[in-house]
Order: sequence, then structure tokens, then C-alpha cells
Amino acid sequence: MTASGAQIDGGLTGETLGRKALAAADAGLDAALGRLFEFLRIPSISTDPAYRERCREAASWAAATLDDLGLAATVIPTTGHPVVVARTDTGARRRVLFYGHYDVQPVDPLDLWETPPFAPRFGAGADGRRTIVGRGASDDKGQVLTFLEALRAFRAAGGAPPVDITVFLEGEEECGSPSLPAFFAAEAGRLKADLALVCDTGMWNPTTPSITTSLRGILPVEVTITGASRDLHSGLYGGAARNPIHVLADILAAARDADGRITIPGFYDEVREMPDPVRDAWARLALGPEDFLKPVGLSVPAGERDRMLIEQIQSRPTMEVNGIFGGYTGEGTKTIIPAKATAKISFRLVADQDPAKIAAAFEGFVRARLPADCGASFTGHGGSRAFLVDPASPDLAHAARALEAEWGVAPVMVGSGGSIPIVGQFKSHLGIDTLLIGFALDDDRIHSPNEKYDVTSFHKGTRSWVRILQALG
Amino acid sequence: MTASGAQIDGGLTGETLGRKALAAADAGLDAALGRLFEFLRIPSISTDPAYRERCREAASWAAATLDDLGLAATVIPTTGHPVVVARTDTGARRRVLFYGHYDVQPVDPLDLWETPPFAPRFGAGADGRRTIVGRGASDDKGQVLTFLEALRAFRAAGGAPPVDITVFLEGEEECGSPSLPAFFAAEAGRLKADLALVCDTGMWNPTTPSITTSLRGILPVEVTITGASRDLHSGLYGGAARNPIHVLADILAAARDADGRITIPGFYDEVREMPDPVRDAWARLALGPEDFLKPVGLSVPAGERDRMLIEQIQSRPTMEVNGIFGGYTGEGTKTIIPAKATAKISFRLVADQDPAKIAAAFEGFVRARLPADCGASFTGHGGSRAFLVDPASPDLAHAARALEAEWGVAPVMVGSGGSIPIVGQFKSHLGIDTLLIGFALDDDRIHSPNEKYDVTSFHKGTRSWVRILQALG
Repeated sequence: MTASGAQIDGGLTGETLGRKALAAADAGLDAALGRLFEFLRIPSISTDPAYRERCREAASWAAATLDDLGLAATVIPTTGHPVVVARTDTGARRRVLFYGHYDVQPVDPLDLWETPPFAPRFGAGADGRRTIVGRGASDDKGQVLTFLEALRAFRAAGGAPPVDITVFLEGEEECGSPSLPAFFAAEAGRLKADLALVCDTGMWNPTTPSITTSLRGILPVEVTITGASRDLHSGLYGGAARNPIHVLADILAAARDADGRITIPGFYDEVREMPDPVRDAWARLALGPEDFLKPVGLSVPAGERDRMLIEQIQSRPTMEVNGIFGGYTGEGTKTIIPAKATAKISFRLVADQDPAKIAAAFEGFVRARLPADCGASFTGHGGSRAFLVDPASPDLAHAARALEAEWGVAPVMVGSGGSIPIVGQFKSHLGIDTLLIGFALDDDRIHSPNEKYDVTSFHKGTRSWVRILQALG
Repeated sequence: MTASGAQIDGGLTGETLGRKALAAADAGLDAALGRLFEFLRIPSISTDPAYRERCREAASWAAATLDDLGLAATVIPTTGHPVVVARTDTGARRRVLFYGHYDVQPVDPLDLWETPPFAPRFGAGADGRRTIVGRGASDDKGQVLTFLEALRAFRAAGGAPPVDITVFLEGEEECGSPSLPAFFAAEAGRLKADLALVCDTGMWNPTTPSITTSLRGILPVEVTITGASRDLHSGLYGGAARNPIHVLADILAAARDADGRITIPGFYDEVREMPDPVRDAWARLALGPEDFLKPVGLSVPAGERDRMLIEQIQSRPTMEVNGIFGGYTGEGTKTIIPAKATAKISFRLVADQDPAKIAAAFEGFVRARLPADCGASFTGHGGSRAFLVDPASPDLAHAARALEAEWGVAPVMVGSGGSIPIVGQFKSHLGIDTLLIGFALDDDRIHSPNEKYDVTSFHKGTRSWVRILQALG
């Protein structure tokens, strides 16, 4: 590998190139921050049609920056905002696909911003940490530039990363990526690679990096229980007429046992246990209710009783009722037995649970509990599978060692309870795995006023990518 | 009694007077219908302020009619629509208080009326039955006039009923009787009597009369379960954070067992069994799901498994969730764990259940099931007790025999699942029991367009009151 790296680098050994690139990242920090400020000044709010041209401007800015780094960049139109694809073709043995997004969240409520959201400035964070304040500073423009600045550092050091690079930036992440399925269907060939890297996640804490090695999948299901043909008077019919709210409550209650386990038959059949090393590492983190639940006013973990809290939120599947409604919901009382009641449910899935199988199992569970004169209808099936990095993946080990070298502490391997659909699309369309590595912090206020990104996140993030790209080569 | 009757009647024996009064009711039917049409032409919609003067007009019409019958009538102002109180003072041994209401329901949707709601006309009902069509024909102007026309029949026969009469008509029954508590507090003395009669209920079927011998009480309770201090992301928190919808569903499901019994401790402690004769009579009625549930699209009685359907709706207490809401209830999905969830519940109570005790028992039941980090708040306590006529009451037996004499079939003793608060007020303010006897039919479309009352209900209702008043004397 070093020999191969040496050829590509035109004479520099990989080790020397890495050292020089890190030095270049340090020396170029101020200039890099200047470029980030430029990027942040473009109000690329994807969800608001009024900012359509500003989104195009952000895509053009990114493409020009990539061109400047020696990557041939193309702005590709979609049915919505364009995507940017850029690539090196050095003939390296491997190619990594880097994904990020150039669009940002809306800024309302504007009056809660201390300074205008698209006039980036330096600020002072907790413990005097220096920050960059502005919409997109963390999500995702700052994170995207950590990677691009790493590429620049290689170039400044007189070389190139030991892997070929494809950069893929979209402009609709904050509005559900509606154009991506069609883009993947038509243009997946442009994105062929051996591994994907995504920089849109966070650190464990300000001094401890992390790699997100699992994402839960999601299965949204809405179920409506129907009873009588119309709302009934609860005095005249109460006692004899089946109440769909009761039926629904019975079903929801029956779906979990006293130990917090979901009772839907087969629900856990395809759940994989996290490998012992991961569980051991999680145990050492000792994430407790004080840390995780107290800030939101809770104190008792509500999941499976025999699981650590961190397992409950990261590696175990869940069933949550996101909303429920039926009957009279206005002021005061109306004494009816309603004709129907509805629950909006989302299951979080873990590998290898199949959304279609779980949907069918849930439907069967409901129908088995329906009184003979009640009905049930279901909408919103579909959903996405969970994502789990193979814990034996050499790429994971390489990236982990690179992060440890930069931060002086081994990265925490975390699961995320949330879902990042792009990761599933990389798997299904490109057949590749993804490493999710990011440098955001819990207090970055993404999606909120006064969003910020620590200068340390930006600087050491850039250095981290230098080390990771070296390691992946 | 006959002797006493004879004195009052100025020479006629009770039996002779009764026969003559029935004959007078027959002979005077057309004139009586004419008076009912007059009453029906007054649009006394109590809930709409635009009809305030028309309500007063209806009260005046009723007072004039009562004066004409020899009862000294007074229109008494209240904070809302006036009440009418009229009385005889013949010195009879006993006094009965007759209650009805002169106000009517609104008429919307107006376009569904075949003829204008306040232009009464004759119509043809099922099986060619002759009907009176118009708002209030059944509820309650037609029913009120059955009683007043019975008084007129006694007068036409040259006598008077063997009991003294107080007639009490209110004008706010259709809008919750807001002025009655203050009226009772100030004027209950005017209503002193030995027994109350209410004509605002129905027949068992067009050929079988009934006496409503029980009314369920009602206890409305709204419970809100609170969890986290704000809505949480169900991906990030799902599994560890308690979901108030789940807590609420668990509580609602736990409140009834597989046999349909309410499991709240003490719930049945003060429930009285209906006397065997009543249960036997109910059993002979053989009310089944085909009759009662099929018309509303149901088929399986949902109440206590070891009870007849008629018991489930009449003599057994219930707990119904009238409405439920929590979390996201709009279109599509929003993956949250809500901060709270609410159920609007109404208990139907039977004698001798105490609303306050049941409210406390329910609150205890909920609190016993709350996770340590959840809260519960309760609103809307209060409610009314059930009403149950003493089955050994001689008045009940007298009225039953009178109805059997008129209809040729013994009246069915029914319970009503609904609540008629005035009955509780008669008990608490006047210390008297109430007989609920009415001649409405299930197909009278009360509260709906094209309300009607059968001419037979009107005619034989009048005759029934003649017999009942004779019997009560």
C-alpha cells in the first residue's frame, strides 16, 4: 500500500505525505474558515421555493471549489435542486464515495437569532470554545468542508489521497430528498465506489470522536379500528356496543409485555445481537438515565428491562405510537361511542428485520385481536431497513485507528436510533457499506436559531479525514 | 279512595268519572290536535338567542292553556327562559308534579325537512300510522299535551283528577337546563308534591307501553397522562423514553377484563341487582343483537359476558372512552414521542354508585399504574347518581295497571342508559320519586328533520294519563 501510495503521490511515501498534509491543514486553517464563511453566506434553504436560485448558487459554489481541488465536478439537474458529483481518477486501487448536502434548514423563528443567520461570525461556546455561528455551520456545510479541506491539504502537501474520491453532494436533504430515487435510478453508475463516507453525524462528546455503526430502520403504519356505522350515544348504547377506542387501547397494550418486550409474533426473529466488543464498549460508556433522560424530564428507562439504556435506543427495535385520535376531542364532553379510532405508529427496526415482514406481522397481530364486528384498515406500509456496519470490517478498524490517532482517544461506536435513508440507497443501488463519521456536537443547535460548529470540530475534523483517507488507502 | 274521589268530583264516583273522561278524550281528539298544532307553530328553539321571544311566547301559550284548564298558572322568569308553574288546589290527599318542557331542538339541516318544521301537518308513518309532523311534535310538546289534554278530559267529564296537580314546564331542557339549579334553590317550595311524573320517554314498541324505572347516572372524567417535558424524536429516544400514549393505552386496557368487567377496585361495590321480576320480564323481552346492534352495524354485545344485553345497557355500569388524543394527528407521519395524551371518559352509574367515590377510585387506579416519571391530571369530576324506582312502589304498580288497561298489554319496565338530570333534582330538592312514562316511538326522529308523533301516541297517551291519574288517586 505504501508503495502504491508512493507511485500515486509522485515520490512521497504515504507517511510523509500524511504528515505534510496535516501540517498543511494546520497552516491553512484561517483560509479554510474563510471559504466556509463564503459557503455559509449562501442562503440555500431547500424547502422554500423562494430560495431555488440560491440553492443552485450553493451547488455552483461547491462545484467550483471541487474543480479548484482538481476534481472534475458536474452540476446535475434533478426534478428538484441539482446534485454535484465530482471525482478524481488517479487509478488508485480503491474508490470512496463521500456524501454530504449543501442545503440548509429554514431559519425561522428569525427573531431568536442573535446575528443574521447568513452572516456567519465567530462566537464563544461553552468552556470558551471558539465557534462558527450561522445557518448550516454544522449541518451540513461545515461538515462537508472538513472533507474538502482534507483534500486541499493533500494537494497543498504536493500529493493526493491514496484512494480515488467521488464527492456527491445533494441539495434536498432537509426536505426529504424527493429527487434522489429518480437520480439513483438513472445515474447510479456515476457513484460507483468501494465504500461510502457520510459526514452528517456527531461526536460522542467534545473530546471523544465516534463512528455511527448502526442506524435503525423505520416502518410507519397507521391503523384505524372501525366499529359501529356511526357515532353512538354512550348512554343508550354504552355497555353493549363495542368501542373502537377500547379495542385500539387493548391492542396497543397487548403489543408490549410487562418487561417492555414487543409481543408481536416473530418481531425479534431477525434481530441481531450487537457483537460482544461493542456491547462491552457500550457498557463502559455507562450511559444512564441521569445523562440521557433527566434533561427531558424523565428518569426511568422504558424499554426492554434486560437491556442497557444505550441498547434500548440504538440496537433494539421499538414500537412507538406517535399519535392517537378517536371520538370527541374538543372542549368539554360529548357522550359518544365513536365509530372509529386511529393510531399512528412507527416501528424502529434493527438488522436484519424486514419492514414488509414486520408490517404483515403487525397486521396479523391486530386482526387476531379484532372483535368479530370490528374492522381494521392499515396505511403507510413501506419503510426502510436498518443499517449495521460489519464490526469485522477492515475499513471500520482503519477509520477507528485514524480517529484515535487524531483525538488521542478511541472513537465510540454508536448506533443511531434515527434513520438516514441515503445509507440504505448506497447499499441497495451501489452495493456498498457506509461509514458515518461526523464532528458535530450535541449543543450545535442544528435546525434551531444560532446554529454553530466548533472551530475545533472543523479543524480536527479536517485532520481526521486526512488520517482516515490515508488509512483507507 | 273512591269516596274521597267522589267528594272531589262533586258527586261522580271515580269509576264513572274515569269512563266519562276517557269518552271526552275520544270526542275531543280533533280539537286537542288543533291545540297541539297551535303549540307546534311557536318556534321555541331555546339554544338560539334569536328565538328568545318565541320561547317566552311558548311559555305564555302554555300558561294560558293551563289557566283555561282551571290551573292557576304563573310564568316565572329565570336567568334564561322562563318556567311555567300551575297548580290545582282541590284539597286532595295527594299531589303529583308533572314535568315537561316547552322548548325544542334547532331545526338544521333545514333542507332535509319535507315541509317547514314549524308548519305542523298530518303525515303517514310506517304501516300507514297517522302522524303529526313538526319540530317538537314528539319532543316534548306532543307529550306535554297528552297530560294537559287528560286534565281537560276530566274537566269535560264534569270532574277533576283525584289527586292535586302541579304542572312544571321548563324552557331550557334542550340546552342543558342551566337555570334550573338556581330555580330549585329559590323556588323548590312551589313544586312540593308526593310524586313526580315525567312525560319525555318512549314506548317499548308501537303497541307496548313502558315505564322507565331506572336511569343511569353519569360521571365524566378527562385524564391527561404526561411524560417528557417536550415532544421527543422517536428515533433518538424511542425505547428509552416513556410514551404517554402507551401508558394511557395500558391503563384503559387494564380497566376492563376479558369478561367485560371493569376492574377498578370497588367499582361494583354499590351496584344493586335488579329485582328478579324485572330481570325475568327483561329475559322474556329477549332483546338480542339482531334487534339492537344490527341497525348500527354491530353484532357482538361488548359488555359483561354474563349479563343479558338489556342489562348491559340499562342496569349495569359502564366505562366508555368518548374521545382520545395525543401526539401527531395530522396527515402523514411525524416521528415523535408526545409529551402527553388525553382520554375523555364517561362512566354510566347505576344505583347506588356514588360519582365522587367512583371518581376517586378511578384516580387511584390510574395513579397506581403510572410510571415513576409520568404524571396524571384529572378534570371534569362531578356527575349525577343513577335513579331507580323502588320496584315495590305502589305508585308504580298503579301506573302499570292503568297502562295495561289502556294498551291491553302490560308495560315493559325499562332502564334507560341515558341520564335525565331533573329526576335527580326532584329527589334531592323535593325528596320525591319520579315515574317516567312517555309515548314516543323509536322512529319519531327527535332532534332530526321531519320529527313526528303518532296520532295514536297522542290519543292513547291522553287516555293513559286519565287512567294513571285515576289510579294514583
